[in-house]
Amino acid sequence: MAESSALPLVILAEQFAKLPGIGMKTAQRLAYHVMSMSREDAKQFADAIISAKDNVGCCKVCQNLTEFEVCPICSSERRDRTQICVVESPKDVTAFERTNEYEGTYHVLHGLLSPVDGINADDLKIKELLRRIGTDEVREVIMATNPTVEGEATAMYIARLLKPMGIKVTRLAFGIPVGGHLEYADEVTLFKALENRSEM
Amino acid sequence: MAESSALPLVILAEQFAKLPGIGMKTAQRLAYHVMSMSREDAKQFADAIISAKDNVGCCKVCQNLTEFEVCPICSSERRDRTQICVVESPKDVTAFERTNEYEGTYHVLHGLLSPVDGINADDLKIKELLRRIGTDEVREVIMATNPTVEGEATAMYIARLLKPMGIKVTRLAFGIPVGGHLEYADEVTLFKALENRSEM
Repeated sequence: MAESSALPLVILAEQFAKLPGIGMKTAQRLAYHVMSMSREDAKQFADAIISAKDNVGCCKVCQNLTEFEVCPICSSERRDRTQICVVESPKDVTAFERTNEYEGTYHVLHGLLSPVDGINADDLKIKELLRRIGTDEVREVIMATNPTVEGEATAMYIARLLKPMGIKVTRLAFGIPVGGHLEYADEVTLFKALENRSEM
Repeated sequence: MAESSALPLVILAEQFAKLPGIGMKTAQRLAYHVMSMSREDAKQFADAIISAKDNVGCCKVCQNLTEFEVCPICSSERRDRTQICVVESPKDVTAFERTNEYEGTYHVLHGLLSPVDGINADDLKIKELLRRIGTDEVREVIMATNPTVEGEATAMYIARLLKPMGIKVTRLAFGIPVGGHLEYADEVTLFKALENRSEM
């Protein structure tokens, strides 16, 4: 093995392997792919990494990743500032934006409460959320964390903080995914779907 | 969508999406991961790309990727220069080296003949192989291209060039993979396994 390896290639493969969901074999394949790219393309790739790291920060209102001080959603005239959708990560904002249906604003927690992993309220952007509610005329906070143990716990924790402030706190509906099959749904999902049934 | 996007992040995701086997969703996930890396780690990643591109070239003997003029395998005292294993790509060399069994040298073609895609003999490192055979005391060339149409055609083409030079040309054995199941083997593999059966 050692005899065949070009060291910078091994280092590059190790860098790829640090990315989530990329094993050593895929990492090696990607490293070889970089070798087949033009010098210019490789440079663009490397520059994109540095540029994203250097030019993207957190929106000072909603904490979503942005290249501006205040992100385009928070500074948009068209968004409803009375609604805040609280999510775990920037990816979730992208998912909601893809629906083209939500007109309110967001708040990105950058994580979920997880005492086991030593992540508690101070590690999340909860202070920033409370500060927004103190200043903006917020009427509803939609808890849109994932339906996992940590997601539920975080939603409950924040709800308990907000309710005394007279804020309406709601939670995303859980049920059968559209296009899904009943037979593949797990029991908890099926139970939630039954519990949250609506009149036709 | 556009409103939520931090441009440098979109550019980085597009760069990741250019890699083989990485779709837009995974690319986005990787771009977000880069955001969670430290500045130093991101720098190391970017540098590894440039360094691999700048410092790795082809071994002037076997054409495998290496940071040296002559790769460690070709310059090793312990390797048998009378045997050359001809493979499609550097990945295949790594695969053979992992077996820890092969003692000979390699020759990397950097592709396979594919007239449909406009890849013909001049695009592969075949001249370089013939030159080696002219100078080194090569006795056997093992054709280790993949058992695909292009792999077979390339093996046949090179074999036809080498045989008149008095070189023994061999082909990898095809058969049931070790640990595989007969019932899952396709007909061609099963036929090959039958054809190449050995006495016990």
